Amino acid sequence: MKEKVVLAYSGGLDTSFCAKYLSVEKNLEVYTAIANTGGFGAEELDDIEKRAYELGSAKHVTLDVTDTYYNKCIRYMVYGNVLRNNTYPISVSSERVFQAIAIIEYAKKIGAKYVAHGSTGAGNDQVRFDLTFEVLAPDIKILTPTRDLQLSRQAEIDYLKEHGVEADWSKMAYSINKGLWGTSIGGKETLTSEKTLPEEAYPSQLKEKGEKEISLDFVEGELKGVDGKKYFNTVDAIRALEDLAAPFAIGRDMHIGDTIIGIKGRVGFEAAAPMLIIKAHQMLEKHTLTKWQMYWKEQLANWYGMFLHEALYLDPVMRDIEKFLENTQETVTGKVIIKLKPYHYVLVGIESDNDLMKSDFGEYGEMNKAWTSEDVKGFTKILGTSLKIYNSVNKKY
Amino acid sequence: MKEKVVLAYSGGLDTSFCAKYLSVEKNLEVYTAIANTGGFGAEELDDIEKRAYELGSAKHVTLDVTDTYYNKCIRYMVYGNVLRNNTYPISVSSERVFQAIAIIEYAKKIGAKYVAHGSTGAGNDQVRFDLTFEVLAPDIKILTPTRDLQLSRQAEIDYLKEHGVEADWSKMAYSINKGLWGTSIGGKETLTSEKTLPEEAYPSQLKEKGEKEISLDFVEGELKGVDGKKYFNTVDAIRALEDLAAPFAIGRDMHIGDTIIGIKGRVGFEAAAPMLIIKAHQMLEKHTLTKWQMYWKEQLANWYGMFLHEALYLDPVMRDIEKFLENTQETVTGKVIIKLKPYHYVLVGIESDNDLMKSDFGEYGEMNKAWTSEDVKGFTKILGTSLKIYNSVNKKY
Amino acid sequence: MKEKVVLAYSGGLDTSFCAKYLSVEKNLEVYTAIANTGGFGAEELDDIEKRAYELGSAKHVTLDVTDTYYNKCIRYMVYGNVLRNNTYPISVSSERVFQAIAIIEYAKKIGAKYVAHGSTGAGNDQVRFDLTFEVLAPDIKILTPTRDLQLSRQAEIDYLKEHGVEADWSKMAYSINKGLWGTSIGGKETLTSEKTLPEEAYPSQLKEKGEKEISLDFVEGELKGVDGKKYFNTVDAIRALEDLAAPFAIGRDMHIGDTIIGIKGRVGFEAAAPMLIIKAHQMLEKHTLTKWQMYWKEQLANWYGMFLHEALYLDPVMRDIEKFLENTQETVTGKVIIKLKPYHYVLVGIESDNDLMKSDFGEYGEMNKAWTSEDVKGFTKILGTSLKIYNSVNKKY
Amino acid sequence: MKEKVVLAYSGGLDTSFCAKYLSVEKNLEVYTAIANTGGFGAEELDDIEKRAYELGSAKHVTLDVTDTYYNKCIRYMVYGNVLRNNTYPISVSSERVFQAIAIIEYAKKIGAKYVAHGSTGAGNDQVRFDLTFEVLAPDIKILTPTRDLQLSRQAEIDYLKEHGVEADWSKMAYSINKGLWGTSIGGKETLTSEKTLPEEAYPSQLKEKGEKEISLDFVEGELKGVDGKKYFNTVDAIRALEDLAAPFAIGRDMHIGDTIIGIKGRVGFEAAAPMLIIKAHQMLEKHTLTKWQMYWKEQLANWYGMFLHEALYLDPVMRDIEKFLENTQETVTGKVIIKLKPYHYVLVGIESDNDLMKSDFGEYGEMNKAWTSEDVKGFTKILGTSLKIYNSVNKKY
Repeated sequence: MKEKVVLAYSGGLDTSFCAKYLSVEKNLEVYTAIANTGGFGAEELDDIEKRAYELGSAKHVTLDVTDTYYNKCIRYMVYGNVLRNNTYPISVSSERVFQAIAIIEYAKKIGAKYVAHGSTGAGNDQVRFDLTFEVLAPDIKILTPTRDLQLSRQAEIDYLKEHGVEADWSKMAYSINKGLWGTSIGGKETLTSEKTLPEEAYPSQLKEKGEKEISLDFVEGELKGVDGKKYFNTVDAIRALEDLAAPFAIGRDMHIGDTIIGIKGRVGFEAAAPMLIIKAHQMLEKHTLTKWQMYWKEQLANWYGMFLHEALYLDPVMRDIEKFLENTQETVTGKVIIKLKPYHYVLVGIESDNDLMKSDFGEYGEMNKAWTSEDVKGFTKILGTSLKIYNSVNKKY
Repeated sequence: MKEKVVLAYSGGLDTSFCAKYLSVEKNLEVYTAIANTGGFGAEELDDIEKRAYELGSAKHVTLDVTDTYYNKCIRYMVYGNVLRNNTYPISVSSERVFQAIAIIEYAKKIGAKYVAHGSTGAGNDQVRFDLTFEVLAPDIKILTPTRDLQLSRQAEIDYLKEHGVEADWSKMAYSINKGLWGTSIGGKETLTSEKTLPEEAYPSQLKEKGEKEISLDFVEGELKGVDGKKYFNTVDAIRALEDLAAPFAIGRDMHIGDTIIGIKGRVGFEAAAPMLIIKAHQMLEKHTLTKWQMYWKEQLANWYGMFLHEALYLDPVMRDIEKFLENTQETVTGKVIIKLKPYHYVLVGIESDNDLMKSDFGEYGEMNKAWTSEDVKGFTKILGTSLKIYNSVNKKY
Repeated sequence: MKEKVVLAYSGGLDTSFCAKYLSVEKNLEVYTAIANTGGFGAEELDDIEKRAYELGSAKHVTLDVTDTYYNKCIRYMVYGNVLRNNTYPISVSSERVFQAIAIIEYAKKIGAKYVAHGSTGAGNDQVRFDLTFEVLAPDIKILTPTRDLQLSRQAEIDYLKEHGVEADWSKMAYSINKGLWGTSIGGKETLTSEKTLPEEAYPSQLKEKGEKEISLDFVEGELKGVDGKKYFNTVDAIRALEDLAAPFAIGRDMHIGDTIIGIKGRVGFEAAAPMLIIKAHQMLEKHTLTKWQMYWKEQLANWYGMFLHEALYLDPVMRDIEKFLENTQETVTGKVIIKLKPYHYVLVGIESDNDLMKSDFGEYGEMNKAWTSEDVKGFTKILGTSLKIYNSVNKKY
Repeated sequence: MKEKVVLAYSGGLDTSFCAKYLSVEKNLEVYTAIANTGGFGAEELDDIEKRAYELGSAKHVTLDVTDTYYNKCIRYMVYGNVLRNNTYPISVSSERVFQAIAIIEYAKKIGAKYVAHGSTGAGNDQVRFDLTFEVLAPDIKILTPTRDLQLSRQAEIDYLKEHGVEADWSKMAYSINKGLWGTSIGGKETLTSEKTLPEEAYPSQLKEKGEKEISLDFVEGELKGVDGKKYFNTVDAIRALEDLAAPFAIGRDMHIGDTIIGIKGRVGFEAAAPMLIIKAHQMLEKHTLTKWQMYWKEQLANWYGMFLHEALYLDPVMRDIEKFLENTQETVTGKVIIKLKPYHYVLVGIESDNDLMKSDFGEYGEMNKAWTSEDVKGFTKILGTSLKIYNSVNKKY
């Protein structure tokens, strides 16, 4: 009897090659599986399934982990306003870990001896897959034909043709990955340092030329309402917001950062809903959290984003950070008003019962009952004492 | 003989009242002084001088500390990409400390027994002035009639009229402070949480409707060229960029943050040049610094901005942070290309001899000579070892 | 009818003076209350009660908040291995906040219009009391006769004598404060920078001249066993360990640090049980937590200790940090072996099912099955890639 | 003509085997080199040289980099009070990088095509050597016969005997590494979690049974005087202090930490001078630095120690941190008094012109002229404002 391999199958050329190669050359029973974290539509998944069977998959499964991905990842990225390098909502790359977890759990469930993925040897994904697989199933062996053989696209196409598989493998001008938390766009300009992506490289073209004011409702840090409509499931709210905002061509930018393997890389992205959610959420926090809550959230969330991006999601420190972030959200409830315009947006303001700006204690710039001039003088005197001492002892200034 | 007081004089109603009040009621010889950190033009300074003498100033001086402000403050804010609460370039409020230093040094020089300022008891500036004065001259007594008396504007106007001073003290709809590093706008909407400033509140109206691609040249972190023209003095470069970019109505936003005195406040700002400089500089750093340089810069610069904003510029830790930041800039040299559009801009790319993305060691997404598939497998195995151990011991997943 | 004041009463001269003064001069009905966080014995509390009534207290209460203090504070200090300035277990000063909370809650319960404490104007305690009172009951007015009048000890004694109160108010050579989490010792040498406390200043004299090996059992970070005996209540375990270890004169040191009011201060302490618990706990964590859990715990716990010390326990960021710390303790279970000697101790080792050093994955210094030489070479090559690039681009070395 | 290899030669069995193996099996011309960072005496170095030539070294060199090691590393570890995991002065392991740098520079100088070291595949040193070699000389190939062949000690001895090399290779009970910054001790108990090293495992036996008070003089953070004697070169001061303190058997402990390769390890050490210098220096800083200088020093120095330990000394962020640390030392000048006792010591106090505790501004616990009761009340009121607002809005307590 043949041994089983579970192949993380995407329908693309690399993993199609792997499917055939593992079956023919390695004499394995190939189980194809696709883990959907929200980026694939039903039709697309059907096509992928069909192609999998054409390639001789013993069994193909679609593992839907969209809610898991939201609950165990996106939620915390929003709590933490996570933008890698101050720019990138970690679209797509954050999904990999959850896809890897789903794949390896399936492999364990069916008693597979091998697990395979189609990542090349030059990017981050190979590390995300390998590391997750190894930590969760040290006894399952990892196979990566694409990485090991380093074949050209044409060689892969020829191999498939040889084995009776014909398909349209034409390469797109840009490599586009669509996910629930944004779409990444690589190729051409992103391989240079000097150029940005042209308008036509972005899947979401500008369709709205006017302005539109919308509101987002957050309940304890989670998006639960878009433009007046309530959502029980935040995943639905994210999708509704994306539909609304994408036509404004909002949330486009270029991420420049360090890869896990030490080189620097550049990738374009468009992420209308993620950017609006993060920026709106962050403004709501400015009104509802204390200064030091914001200070420490930023430190921890920055780290959280880095480890998520760099394949270290399973480090238990990530669970500790999640507890911290979750606890801060207790008061992050309210409405944020945003004005959408072509290519950009304006954060208008917020309404919240937890707004710390709205209190009886006084208003910026206005004298009030909460303190007197003498109080501030005393405050300043004591605040400055250590520096007065320093200066009197050291005569620096 | 009358005792001397140096009054930080701005030409406005509050400090005009102080000038008269200190002379008449306190029987002091009033020396008016204005410390210009780059926000005042020559004409404006002349008007202020004239008004000072009309109020009976014994002597009026203009202390120009623009270069000092750039060299001791703006420079480090750029090195650190300082945006308070991820938004605010600390426009204006960062100038206060340098104005306070200039004023108190002048007071010491002329042997004044008193120093006075016109800040009210409800904002940050009183703390910035008081604390700086106290640390640098613990023996000079601080007088603050405006804060202590809490008079209405009308009461101040009446008092001045009574003493023969008539002027147009009409209140503007918004309180606007213009400085070298941006303009702050307060009033009306900024006193609410829900609304943003209307178009007409911004001094720099949109004048450019098209697009314009410009370049910024940085030399070891300092802006030394704008759109192809070189500048010896970065202050001139900042001004040139402001002239170029302000007509695009770029760099507008609202800062929501904690005041030194514990309440939250909101203020609008426009800062075309500062925002472009910081964002361009930061992108150049993404190409020229290592991951951990960026990581630590962010921590330290965030603190630097906070202390600068909160009147603690004189803490010696600030000098230590400056050394760190300065040292990181050694390789931050290169050209940044930006596309200006109405209300927003696109960071196009960079060119730099220090670009770490441009090396012989390989390109993101492309296999190369610097490492093999086997190297990455070994790397990932070792990287995951601690998590494998953790999981095997604790059986968490 | 007289208005009520709740006085935080300790039985000492200052608060005895306050009791009489508030009654006689302010015509208030004085309710004395002592909040015991574990530092007072039953006999002592009885004496204090007796004295309170002698001073004319309308009603005296003892508020026992020892368990609250442990559960809401000590527990987290242990989780975080909190030593202020790397030295001080925040003995005594951490108790103040919980005493203040108990007092103000009592004042609210009985509808008092005033609350009073006896702290002077030169230390940290006044800030801890005032701030906690103000945050929890902004409408109750704070009275501090000792601070306001700045009377000498003799003047206070004379005042009490005048009003018929005679007692032995003789001043001790050192001011000693005993609490559950250690004893602080101030006076003489601690007012200098050059000298340390003499042997006789320490309440716990050396009584054990030999060696003794003991074990401490931790369950999810909490001390639950001492020398083989189990404890349901950790407070009892702390006391048992103190009884066992104090005769070895362990855990003595001098804390030098910044006060809340900006000057530096020095205080001696002895804290046998706290020091052993923290050091043992920390060693157990070195075996049971990942590197990054320890890294972030240290940052957050350092901050936690600072805010606790500096009267900011009520900032909600403290609750967030507590959640983080608590979550890290899931695997901190095991036994720690310690050898006690006169004046010092040796951490011998640990036994734990969660020990990450004990795994099948290999041993430090020994080759093993978890990785090969080639894996480490690959790891090192990838780990060094960014530096190789940096060096090839910048030619620094 | 044979190609050259530079072998990092220590005189031990592993590198002796390498010398012979590289010559016989790889047909290379073997240049042996030992980089002395202060741990080797002249006699020892002579013996090593003799043995190198016996093994057929084409040329043997001793590279003395003690001063470099002090100036580029120990100095900063003292500035930063670096103790890895709060315990370990990074004795020995910090030397490796400087040995590696010296070796690779020598290899470049003589045009060697290969460089070799004798580290095994189970520890940290292999990464320190490999990574440093690769970054500084990407074109020189690294050879590691010991790691690759994984021979037993007996197999290495047999091989050497076969090739005419006889020596006393008897294994010691403990593996001991002596360096300028402490001695590490591994073996037996350090391979367990439960036991500590026995008395006899420590090279420095207890010889002093009494007490001795000594003083250490620091000038801008550097040790420049020991017990009244001045030293121009701090390396000499460190040695003088070690001679004085080692007989007290001070500075012994066990380091438990994460290795670079992901497993946890345990190692004993004795480091009398390093521990005294760091603890004395730290106490002096508590008197001479501001609170926030200490806060940030700790963060950065912790990172510095980690990267130093983990082979990442060459990351440019380390140079940035060094600048920060150096700048903080401007005021760290003064004398520290320490009492040495058998196995432990007491930090008595300090004398310094920069002592911030000694000022006219007041003394802890004593009322003074620098502020009034009213000032502190105002201070506390403002300090508590944000929490009062938080509590009034959120009704948490």
